[in-house]
Amino acid sequence: VTRLVAPPTPQPDVARFASIRDATVELAAPLSAEDCALQSMPDASPVKWHLAHTSWFFETFVLRPAVPGYRERHPAYADLFNSYYQSVGEPFPRPQRGMLSRPSLDEVHAYRRHVDEAMAALLARGVTGPLAGVVELGLQHEQQHQELILTDVKHLLSCNPLRPAYRAGPEAVTPERVEGGGRAPLRWHGHPGGIAWIGAAGEGFAFDNESPRHRHLLTPFALADRLVTNGEWLAFLEDQGYARPELWLSDGFATVRAEGWHAPLYWEREGGNPDGAWRQFTHHGLRPLELDAPVCHVSAYEADAYARWAGARLPAEAEWEAVAAPVAVRGNFLESGRLRPAPADARAAASPALQLFGDAWEWTRSAYGPYPGYAPPTGALGEYNGKFMCNQLVLRGGACTTPASHARASYRNFFPPSARWQMTGVRLAKDLT
Amino acid sequence: VTRLVAPPTPQPDVARFASIRDATVELAAPLSAEDCALQSMPDASPVKWHLAHTSWFFETFVLRPAVPGYRERHPAYADLFNSYYQSVGEPFPRPQRGMLSRPSLDEVHAYRRHVDEAMAALLARGVTGPLAGVVELGLQHEQQHQELILTDVKHLLSCNPLRPAYRAGPEAVTPERVEGGGRAPLRWHGHPGGIAWIGAAGEGFAFDNESPRHRHLLTPFALADRLVTNGEWLAFLEDQGYARPELWLSDGFATVRAEGWHAPLYWEREGGNPDGAWRQFTHHGLRPLELDAPVCHVSAYEADAYARWAGARLPAEAEWEAVAAPVAVRGNFLESGRLRPAPADARAAASPALQLFGDAWEWTRSAYGPYPGYAPPTGALGEYNGKFMCNQLVLRGGACTTPASHARASYRNFFPPSARWQMTGVRLAKDLT
Amino acid sequence: VTRLVAPPTPQPDVARFASIRDATVELAAPLSAEDCALQSMPDASPVKWHLAHTSWFFETFVLRPAVPGYRERHPAYADLFNSYYQSVGEPFPRPQRGMLSRPSLDEVHAYRRHVDEAMAALLARGVTGPLAGVVELGLQHEQQHQELILTDVKHLLSCNPLRPAYRAGPEAVTPERVEGGGRAPLRWHGHPGGIAWIGAAGEGFAFDNESPRHRHLLTPFALADRLVTNGEWLAFLEDQGYARPELWLSDGFATVRAEGWHAPLYWEREGGNPDGAWRQFTHHGLRPLELDAPVCHVSAYEADAYARWAGARLPAEAEWEAVAAPVAVRGNFLESGRLRPAPADARAAASPALQLFGDAWEWTRSAYGPYPGYAPPTGALGEYNGKFMCNQLVLRGGACTTPASHARASYRNFFPPSARWQMTGVRLAKDLT
Amino acid sequence: VTRLVAPPTPQPDVARFASIRDATVELAAPLSAEDCALQSMPDASPVKWHLAHTSWFFETFVLRPAVPGYRERHPAYADLFNSYYQSVGEPFPRPQRGMLSRPSLDEVHAYRRHVDEAMAALLARGVTGPLAGVVELGLQHEQQHQELILTDVKHLLSCNPLRPAYRAGPEAVTPERVEGGGRAPLRWHGHPGGIAWIGAAGEGFAFDNESPRHRHLLTPFALADRLVTNGEWLAFLEDQGYARPELWLSDGFATVRAEGWHAPLYWEREGGNPDGAWRQFTHHGLRPLELDAPVCHVSAYEADAYARWAGARLPAEAEWEAVAAPVAVRGNFLESGRLRPAPADARAAASPALQLFGDAWEWTRSAYGPYPGYAPPTGALGEYNGKFMCNQLVLRGGACTTPASHARASYRNFFPPSARWQMTGVRLAKDLT
Repeated sequence: VTRLVAPPTPQPDVARFASIRDATVELAAPLSAEDCALQSMPDASPVKWHLAHTSWFFETFVLRPAVPGYRERHPAYADLFNSYYQSVGEPFPRPQRGMLSRPSLDEVHAYRRHVDEAMAALLARGVTGPLAGVVELGLQHEQQHQELILTDVKHLLSCNPLRPAYRAGPEAVTPERVEGGGRAPLRWHGHPGGIAWIGAAGEGFAFDNESPRHRHLLTPFALADRLVTNGEWLAFLEDQGYARPELWLSDGFATVRAEGWHAPLYWEREGGNPDGAWRQFTHHGLRPLELDAPVCHVSAYEADAYARWAGARLPAEAEWEAVAAPVAVRGNFLESGRLRPAPADARAAASPALQLFGDAWEWTRSAYGPYPGYAPPTGALGEYNGKFMCNQLVLRGGACTTPASHARASYRNFFPPSARWQMTGVRLAKDLT
Repeated sequence: VTRLVAPPTPQPDVARFASIRDATVELAAPLSAEDCALQSMPDASPVKWHLAHTSWFFETFVLRPAVPGYRERHPAYADLFNSYYQSVGEPFPRPQRGMLSRPSLDEVHAYRRHVDEAMAALLARGVTGPLAGVVELGLQHEQQHQELILTDVKHLLSCNPLRPAYRAGPEAVTPERVEGGGRAPLRWHGHPGGIAWIGAAGEGFAFDNESPRHRHLLTPFALADRLVTNGEWLAFLEDQGYARPELWLSDGFATVRAEGWHAPLYWEREGGNPDGAWRQFTHHGLRPLELDAPVCHVSAYEADAYARWAGARLPAEAEWEAVAAPVAVRGNFLESGRLRPAPADARAAASPALQLFGDAWEWTRSAYGPYPGYAPPTGALGEYNGKFMCNQLVLRGGACTTPASHARASYRNFFPPSARWQMTGVRLAKDLT
Repeated sequence: VTRLVAPPTPQPDVARFASIRDATVELAAPLSAEDCALQSMPDASPVKWHLAHTSWFFETFVLRPAVPGYRERHPAYADLFNSYYQSVGEPFPRPQRGMLSRPSLDEVHAYRRHVDEAMAALLARGVTGPLAGVVELGLQHEQQHQELILTDVKHLLSCNPLRPAYRAGPEAVTPERVEGGGRAPLRWHGHPGGIAWIGAAGEGFAFDNESPRHRHLLTPFALADRLVTNGEWLAFLEDQGYARPELWLSDGFATVRAEGWHAPLYWEREGGNPDGAWRQFTHHGLRPLELDAPVCHVSAYEADAYARWAGARLPAEAEWEAVAAPVAVRGNFLESGRLRPAPADARAAASPALQLFGDAWEWTRSAYGPYPGYAPPTGALGEYNGKFMCNQLVLRGGACTTPASHARASYRNFFPPSARWQMTGVRLAKDLT
Repeated sequence: VTRLVAPPTPQPDVARFASIRDATVELAAPLSAEDCALQSMPDASPVKWHLAHTSWFFETFVLRPAVPGYRERHPAYADLFNSYYQSVGEPFPRPQRGMLSRPSLDEVHAYRRHVDEAMAALLARGVTGPLAGVVELGLQHEQQHQELILTDVKHLLSCNPLRPAYRAGPEAVTPERVEGGGRAPLRWHGHPGGIAWIGAAGEGFAFDNESPRHRHLLTPFALADRLVTNGEWLAFLEDQGYARPELWLSDGFATVRAEGWHAPLYWEREGGNPDGAWRQFTHHGLRPLELDAPVCHVSAYEADAYARWAGARLPAEAEWEAVAAPVAVRGNFLESGRLRPAPADARAAASPALQLFGDAWEWTRSAYGPYPGYAPPTGALGEYNGKFMCNQLVLRGGACTTPASHARASYRNFFPPSARWQMTGVRLAKDLT
């Protein structure tokens, strides 16, 4: 049996629980009930659903099993806000999450408070052992959905010809705006290969898919010291990159044709004019394309084609981790439910580094699969990660929309190669021989 | 050139304008902003969209052309709330109407007030001639959308496993609840055939598709004196009506199989139990199936199959009109934005009659097409009715969700034969030879 | 009960039976076994299937019920070659007819001979009464499939970039090549309106859908004296006819966009060059577009848009029949399984006439439905025509691929408005007021 | 630059060329022109297309570039029989390969002879260097298509309710019939882990995707000594394996539901009766299910679910290769275009072994990707393998339909996880800790 979390879980902290839960609410604060109810595509969920589902998690996996006499808020929520756990009910179909005007946003917030109060009472009584692990998992899960709230609502707002902003303000840091951009020529950071330890080291929380820690044999390689920028992508685009099949994986080029892709998601020409200046839809509305910022919202297919065009390739996830593990985590992150600019000194420190965290998720060439010896936890929580180990690619690092505590070298994010609505960017790699 | 409205249009009345516009707002009153924002299927529109589109109509066809210096509320609304008028812009795609959390419901109400104020000022100055006809058309159009608000929101709420009610209240009259139900055996009302005048007689408003009035030759026939009831439909269902291809049109049976139809829309077994009692989703939530009430929410395919099973057929639209024209209009209707029960004496009067208006729309076997000599109006308003004269069937009569002033013998409603979310029922007909 | 065929059916003639059956075989003669096996789209069937299905008809409706001890060729054929008769088995799915490499073409020909021998023996013994009517229906049915063989194989061959010919030969008359083409200016043939008798008069065979003969009231109208030509269509096309939504029915323009239509089916530019000369794929391969020949292979949507562009409309089927009934049938037809040019004197005679038969099927604006008093025959043959009376439009006249004996004023062909692979053309009509 | 073939390629042998080319023709010999023309699904191709495409390969990559004055058979074949090489033309769309009744099968055979004669002349003059490598690649490619001919035609014939046999004969060895079946209890073959050399060793031909040979670090594991049998699969099926979501990958269970899978492809109940005995469609028609034979025609999703049900997992491709590399290749194979039983002594020798080759392709859990240092060849042949390195899983071993010379430890076959029409089976693996 696999442990869900690597180290003995400390007793959950009431204040930390409240802080993380409140951060989710704060993320939804700029949004109206209407904004929170809509679903723009089957891949994305309404913000209201995220607010409810993260509460459902604690109700289903902590309160109902562990609190005698716990009274659930509403019997229908058990299925309505179940995402995909077939073992604990019949999840309401994902593509229909946007059909639910009821419960209202107000009622969902009441549901959150109902769960939070019961959780506070439980935590005050003290929670240890496996249940403490489940509480911690629930908080990590909550933070994952914080990022999804930001990416899903961005997609929804982008479908609106009014191109509304998620949050206004001149001081705002756009998620795409990251430091250490592309004016400097790209340099290569070499690695001699050999055996590397891969996977969660057992200090602090990690998801089951980061285990077991194991040895992996690497051949010599190099990683770029920074991400590909919008300006570089523009050169690819102007070199007819989207029209040259020889640069693409077969499935990738088929997708380009079927979807009519000709630029990253959220890029558009000013006024729809074919000669208009490029603009980029952000959480703060339409903005001019920043040439020095990392390119974002590209699929793995596009990342792979760009790399081939550039005479390079995407990194393997173990290569990335071998380089990232010794690097101190720096960058911009989501904190307390706000997109915040990093302090100026943190930015300065991050600049000469490898820009590994806090900018954009980095596509790898590695299919998402189990590590040697991996087995999912028993019970419903075994459905958390393991059952998605097919047809997806691993992403590493983390974006400026990722909660800071998720920035670790062993973290494995995963999406299908065609996904573009996450904050996904590109780092180049190459073989050293 | 066809006249849009049959008689010389009287000068529009400010009070009547306000009353009809207000009725639309009252219909939306029981709904939250979330209820008003969602779209349950491409055929249906969000309530918010209906509220905005009906205002767009006056802005586009009255205020912008006729009021010098009129300032539109927002330049984007011209396309955003255009339904299908290709001549006046690029309509925002219908299946994406549910992607619009902005403008908010509050802003849409402000848009309505903006238009209403400008219209009030215009009407106060006096409007005559063709423009008066357009104002009248806008009001009739507004009333059509009142009915669509009720059917579209009903569909939306039915997709929610909570089965929420549009409006609560024990006194409520459900739209399906109609008088003169099916306990009495069905009787036949004969007609000798011969030449009948069909189409709008020129007294009061009529849509262009009701013209020109013309003579039509009928063979002898009979119409049932009442609509088919839920109880009778249950007998069809229990006789395996949905499983017997010989009863169905070819396209109808293919649809039954593809969609898995086995009962009218909104019928469900209690608790999802195959042996549970039949229940029916209404504007007032789930209710027991009323056996004496007219069956509602059946497609033309189902209506046709039922008729064949019953040894009868559907009426032709001219047959229906020939019978209905001399009949005084009675029944339950939508008035002032409320679903109201008819006064008791009106009910009594309606009972022995043919139940032609105010219960459920009646499918005919007649394809929706132009009358001899018909030509649509010139200009954008020519897109109102004429361009849909293909692949649709005519419905006659009117439902309890239909504004009372739309109950007239010449009115031609139309939907594709597969549509079920409107308040559509069945009257039988047969040949007399 | 409706009679299947109008007059008392004469005793079927052995020689006529053989002649019609042989004509079908002759139509397939220029084709290889491979040509006969393929299915190019669900609407079309492989030639081999037509050869088998027409035999299945006699086996199922004549031999099996009427010949004691009849031994069927193969038990699986009962379902395999059933087109859509749900009452007599489970038809093999239409879209999969092209999955059948077995039985081979040779075996299908053997099946035909097997059926023909049994039929010859039966007919030699004499057949009378209702069974004689079924034999006649089988022959008429066979002739309908002769035309379908020609249109279906044309579609298949058109999908091949080699653009192979169905049959070569310099003397060949292409199906599209018709006399009386468009150099002469179009003239209008007026009709005063009034009551007309519509439907089969009872002399000779007619399908059930041509009955009952009944009176119909017409308003004054005029029909064009000839069909629209390719040259005229080119003017429509060059006037941006396919890009102007105001000319189209709503469903029509949606289809134009979804399918990318920009010209009639089978028109292509020489060499795929946007400026290349127009060419037309025919049964004899690619040929230059004949400007004086009637336009062919247009959908009802296109026909309707063209008519609107030309300031006219499509005829109603009763209008067409009222004009056609007194006209002697002349033109080019399919005879004895060959596409034959009409004799020169017949051409001359046809020229000044209304070109009503033998050129291209003429779309009407009339939805295909039952005549007053119509009821389909009882039993499986009731599925022949009645169950398609929805979502289709009536076509009148007949093409040069239509067997000559099918050219009659009361004949009702029917296809969905989007169909283009039949030999469908356009005659204009207009109101006289 | 990657070498296409590992070792210096010997000068191609005229006799070997002819032998392999003839074997392809022999495989098609039992089939009619009709059998060879049809396409049963987009994944599969008509046999005629395989016959032509393999000739196209030599024409395109050998004859046209290397033989001055070579006259191609037909200019249209360059695109018509191009599979997916975007660099050398516009491939005819794969899903439409079944639309081509022309060129005829006879003409395709003539095309083969045309190419073979030109190749024979070229080979007789002597071919060396890179061109010799391309000739060898063409022969290996030809053999891959020999296997595809067998699997594609099997799928086509299975769509026919007559369930025809590819080739009859009591002596026939069915492809599924393999030795060493499942009566013996499954035993585990342990491996201590450590560094293994993976990839083509440089002796004999190998595809580019088998290179570069490199070291890979393995953790201790065990492989089953034989494949899972039909009998064992039946137990899985009877334990409701297809209905239990907890056993499945998320995409796998979604596919099970969408496709209605409930047993391996080609399993059916006798007479369609739910209680009928299980039968299996083979190249020799319907046969009783052999319980001791390896299960075949399962997707990777099913293989994975079975493994989870059995308390095991699928092997990684490196695990498989580490075990297989030292094992002598034995088994049944496709030889000279015939499905042949292995000699009795070979069978005996194979029985106690690990049954690694010649039975059924074995799904691994490994996504198909590039080996460290891999780069595709330059030019059009670089499209051969590399561009498919996404969304596919690796299969190892080889089936009884695989040419014997393709049975090598480093061979990497690949298909999407949902593919079932190949001869795909299951070997279990587990971790040793």
